[in-house]
Amino acid sequence: MAPAIKVGIIGPGGYTGRELLRILANHPFVEVTEVYGQESQGLPLKSLYPYLQGETGDITVKAFGEDDLNADVYFLCVPHGTSARYSIDILNSGKKVIDLSADFRLKKSEAYKMYYQTEHPAPELLEKSVYGMPEFRKDQIAKADLVANPGCLARTSLLAFLPFVIREAVDYGFPIVIDVKTGVSGAGKKPRADLHFPEMNEDFRPYNPLNHRHVPEIIQETVEFGAPKDLKMLFVPHLIPIDRGILASVYFRLKNDSNDFNPYAIFYETYQKSPFVRILKDDLPSLKRVRGSNMVEITAVSSEDGNLVVFAALDNLVSGASGTAVHNFNIMFGLPEGTGLSNLLPL
Amino acid sequence: MAPAIKVGIIGPGGYTGRELLRILANHPFVEVTEVYGQESQGLPLKSLYPYLQGETGDITVKAFGEDDLNADVYFLCVPHGTSARYSIDILNSGKKVIDLSADFRLKKSEAYKMYYQTEHPAPELLEKSVYGMPEFRKDQIAKADLVANPGCLARTSLLAFLPFVIREAVDYGFPIVIDVKTGVSGAGKKPRADLHFPEMNEDFRPYNPLNHRHVPEIIQETVEFGAPKDLKMLFVPHLIPIDRGILASVYFRLKNDSNDFNPYAIFYETYQKSPFVRILKDDLPSLKRVRGSNMVEITAVSSEDGNLVVFAALDNLVSGASGTAVHNFNIMFGLPEGTGLSNLLPL
Amino acid sequence: MAPAIKVGIIGPGGYTGRELLRILANHPFVEVTEVYGQESQGLPLKSLYPYLQGETGDITVKAFGEDDLNADVYFLCVPHGTSARYSIDILNSGKKVIDLSADFRLKKSEAYKMYYQTEHPAPELLEKSVYGMPEFRKDQIAKADLVANPGCLARTSLLAFLPFVIREAVDYGFPIVIDVKTGVSGAGKKPRADLHFPEMNEDFRPYNPLNHRHVPEIIQETVEFGAPKDLKMLFVPHLIPIDRGILASVYFRLKNDSNDFNPYAIFYETYQKSPFVRILKDDLPSLKRVRGSNMVEITAVSSEDGNLVVFAALDNLVSGASGTAVHNFNIMFGLPEGTGLSNLLPL
Amino acid sequence: MAPAIKVGIIGPGGYTGRELLRILANHPFVEVTEVYGQESQGLPLKSLYPYLQGETGDITVKAFGEDDLNADVYFLCVPHGTSARYSIDILNSGKKVIDLSADFRLKKSEAYKMYYQTEHPAPELLEKSVYGMPEFRKDQIAKADLVANPGCLARTSLLAFLPFVIREAVDYGFPIVIDVKTGVSGAGKKPRADLHFPEMNEDFRPYNPLNHRHVPEIIQETVEFGAPKDLKMLFVPHLIPIDRGILASVYFRLKNDSNDFNPYAIFYETYQKSPFVRILKDDLPSLKRVRGSNMVEITAVSSEDGNLVVFAALDNLVSGASGTAVHNFNIMFGLPEGTGLSNLLPL
Repeated sequence: MAPAIKVGIIGPGGYTGRELLRILANHPFVEVTEVYGQESQGLPLKSLYPYLQGETGDITVKAFGEDDLNADVYFLCVPHGTSARYSIDILNSGKKVIDLSADFRLKKSEAYKMYYQTEHPAPELLEKSVYGMPEFRKDQIAKADLVANPGCLARTSLLAFLPFVIREAVDYGFPIVIDVKTGVSGAGKKPRADLHFPEMNEDFRPYNPLNHRHVPEIIQETVEFGAPKDLKMLFVPHLIPIDRGILASVYFRLKNDSNDFNPYAIFYETYQKSPFVRILKDDLPSLKRVRGSNMVEITAVSSEDGNLVVFAALDNLVSGASGTAVHNFNIMFGLPEGTGLSNLLPL
Repeated sequence: MAPAIKVGIIGPGGYTGRELLRILANHPFVEVTEVYGQESQGLPLKSLYPYLQGETGDITVKAFGEDDLNADVYFLCVPHGTSARYSIDILNSGKKVIDLSADFRLKKSEAYKMYYQTEHPAPELLEKSVYGMPEFRKDQIAKADLVANPGCLARTSLLAFLPFVIREAVDYGFPIVIDVKTGVSGAGKKPRADLHFPEMNEDFRPYNPLNHRHVPEIIQETVEFGAPKDLKMLFVPHLIPIDRGILASVYFRLKNDSNDFNPYAIFYETYQKSPFVRILKDDLPSLKRVRGSNMVEITAVSSEDGNLVVFAALDNLVSGASGTAVHNFNIMFGLPEGTGLSNLLPL
Repeated sequence: MAPAIKVGIIGPGGYTGRELLRILANHPFVEVTEVYGQESQGLPLKSLYPYLQGETGDITVKAFGEDDLNADVYFLCVPHGTSARYSIDILNSGKKVIDLSADFRLKKSEAYKMYYQTEHPAPELLEKSVYGMPEFRKDQIAKADLVANPGCLARTSLLAFLPFVIREAVDYGFPIVIDVKTGVSGAGKKPRADLHFPEMNEDFRPYNPLNHRHVPEIIQETVEFGAPKDLKMLFVPHLIPIDRGILASVYFRLKNDSNDFNPYAIFYETYQKSPFVRILKDDLPSLKRVRGSNMVEITAVSSEDGNLVVFAALDNLVSGASGTAVHNFNIMFGLPEGTGLSNLLPL
Repeated sequence: MAPAIKVGIIGPGGYTGRELLRILANHPFVEVTEVYGQESQGLPLKSLYPYLQGETGDITVKAFGEDDLNADVYFLCVPHGTSARYSIDILNSGKKVIDLSADFRLKKSEAYKMYYQTEHPAPELLEKSVYGMPEFRKDQIAKADLVANPGCLARTSLLAFLPFVIREAVDYGFPIVIDVKTGVSGAGKKPRADLHFPEMNEDFRPYNPLNHRHVPEIIQETVEFGAPKDLKMLFVPHLIPIDRGILASVYFRLKNDSNDFNPYAIFYETYQKSPFVRILKDDLPSLKRVRGSNMVEITAVSSEDGNLVVFAALDNLVSGASGTAVHNFNIMFGLPEGTGLSNLLPL
């Protein structure tokens, strides 16, 4: 048996940190050796998560910088801005970084400034970072020291749309409509008046219409894979009163010769080697069927006249965050993609 | 005080029947005098709804045809097919009908046959029926003997889209995308495997994509108000795990001279006399804020390049069904539109 | 028609204030004339609640003390401590007070201090206050200037248990077990980490077991109506992940001659004149069937050997708070008990 | 590595069958080799559960009796009555049975007949069966060929109460009150009018008060471990509108010399070797913290005068059913108790 890969986690207290610990607890080649956080400093991890047993539960949460960096790779589950600053130190120590924040997703620091209202703390690292969509950038991820884990809404949208971009099937004369719906954990763990249980329960609402921070990520990747720079995209997220899950409904027009484009053939071509994309036939995605797992469910329905709606569903905390982070980790360390992930069944 | 209008209800046991009884219980000019149903025949209404007190609770549920039709108007809360057959008898007796089923929504019996897979039981009545959208057909409703209450998803979509059709603001060279989300009561009261609590709870899913029965209604009305007959529409409903509420997110393109079109001005122009449409500024609709009330919340967000997303939210059982049925009733009987409806506050 | 009774509301922004406004909007003899609050000072009420139309929506929220007190009665929907201080001023102005806080529920200031960890701000008023359970203290309420609206858990428990105390049917040699379950709105509107949607959703948990602030109220009233002072009571509340509703399951032992005690006869005797208590036979209470209404559902099941479980269900914001406050108001002003309340049907 | 133990599953389509497959998919020493069912006969398991990959997903669902019984042990996830009949055949073939139905829980066929309204199909097997509570009957389970997996409500209640019975700490002069709350999956997968999503959502209700089928199990085990036969127990289950989880709140009186009884010491003594019982100090159980895992959370709160409330929480489909079935399996086959179970973290 190979010696374990040593993993550090920064920010164990939020939802992505908690989920990462859940996943890594069953990863056969990982040993979590260091945990850095704010709230539980000096306490063992099991004070946060009593179900974490054995050695992982006994790890003491430390302040970042308090100790040498001895792990092989660090997962950053902290807010944007903070994340980039930690990354500098970690990369300087010769270790790898998988960043779950937004800090290294956008390649241009101006775009970052516009959407995140602050100067990028480490623009020199943007070049080195790889946008961590395993289905589309596996080779780059394998060689990367710094992987930017995709935004959850961006990842769901890209899984639905990129196959058609790559296949050059899209008529860009029409706007791409991305109507996406997400569970509440996507908004993070911090209490908020509008997410107080009696306010959110039995509600459903749009937010940030045509103005969400994940749009530039989607555009950037779409253009990288062949779409024109002036691509028109209408992106509207909505909040579902459930814990977990994202469903993207993506509407666009196929090129005139659309008879050439069979969505299933395109999905198959794109995803046949991807262990976590389930292409549905005669069925529609369900958030419950992917809940807690790293799977993506995807399908498409065509209108008679060349328009298409593609549905993609995943768990925002797993395939939309910590699961894909581990997927990227597996690729970076030469492990089979499904290691520690294909065992996660829906719940 | 005016003498009460006598009202008969057919089908008290389903969700629209229950909701109608809730609303009419506080309507100052209505006396429910007859109730016909299948399941509770021979029993008083309060055996179905113990909170119905006084005379309404004591009405005995009868079989249709068992007795003379002595009410002034009948609300039909029964399935399509059945509804048309009852309507013949009621109209022959010189009484009015407000039909909450789909039987008289489509003007062409061929369309009915295509979408409802059965011959229309009373095609001769189609001419007489009025599609009951009070905001757009008030004068016709006022004179009608037979009003077809709109489908809940259709009504929500039309409220969002028709103002722009009427104002001739829409560029029909682009498809209209209607992404609509509905609470589970819209599927009716009959238990279904996929709506069993542990299956539906914490799920969210599309259904009938590009193929829903409410589409021909929407097209019919849109064309009636000026859209071209070959209008392209992509309509996808989704199920939200909540009891009540519909949010429609409608995406379309304005004509090139779109600077001429201010959505708020268009909404104001269309709805200034409509007591149940709340036009939002600097706010987005919330299903919870309309829950149990007859209100519609509506707003629009524009992209820089002439595309628009319009949001409309309402309670599917009130403004989407029984509330609008009472709204139509008020108009048919010359009462102020808000009678018995503006008192319904959200819960 | 009688001239309207002028009503002032202090604290419109919380859940009890919001619910009070919903109820009073349909009360035929009430005119809300003054509203005092912290958060929305200077703004019209409709900025808080856009569905409040007409004159009520246009009332400006003021700071308490900013203006003369011209209403006939004030509903206090503010935290304990604050409430007592306002009450002094209002009563000094010769106006009546209905206090929805805990300030005047306990007759002994020492008990108040023990449970609310602060000196009572107006101990001299405790004598004057009446505990506002309309089913048990109607005559006193009718004459009161200061009514202490009961705690929601206390009211539910007392409705279940007091009839047996009054009938001298309880064997006090055994502890009374009150296992009570409440929706989340009972915890108030302020966001809290443990009530953040993704934390509370799909959870269920006890809180403050054997140590809840409503216990001394229950004991006080129980003793007032004949129970011994050393009554043993085990009271445990639990949180249900729903918006509204309380179900109390109350277990106790009947006296040896228990054959003499028919629970239904006792309920009937106690509640025959109470318009808001529905005694169930061959049915069990459901929170959904009372949601939004002022009704209480009550029933009892006996074991063969003289033990009893009584169930009582109500909506914590209506019968558990603002509905009963209006009920008390009706009694104080000589109106029929059901005025503005019997019209509230479940939703 | 040891050769895999061959496992057969009968009844894969219900909630316990589905959950069992989820758990066994990650059990390192199990190979599911045979699956018998009604609905999906002739189809591969992955037609029911598309996330079941590899060999398990490819197993064809067969009719029981269609083929030889070649597995080492069979898990029965079928209704009572059916289960006993299958058990005869399986035991006659020299294989072991873990029965998740109620057929072998009660030792006396008369009690079975009274509660399940049918003659026991295999009374001769009652003697052989062991009631499968691993925390209390580990040695017997280790030797058993037929294990009766406990009822979910019974197991939760026994975990709370049995430690005090065994320690002879209970004053049986007072009734034991068991107020238990369960998620809806406990009612099974078959759609029911009262569990239709819009009926159950936002509701909470008691059911079968003082008359539930799990009572005789609880009494039987309690008496086996030392309680008197005339033990008085008030048992009331309630439905929570969530998918999974049971919380039992158990109230009873300690003997007079109650100072001798420290609940934590008693829990520790009872459960120190049980890998799935987490004894809480200064904390209360939460259903969400055990959701999807095999853990039980337990704690107790004492009144000053010798009464106790014990809380126990678990996931009804895991520790309350399929997880404990696997726990029993591990014991029967000499595996460490936590095999394939301690990896299940809450979700």
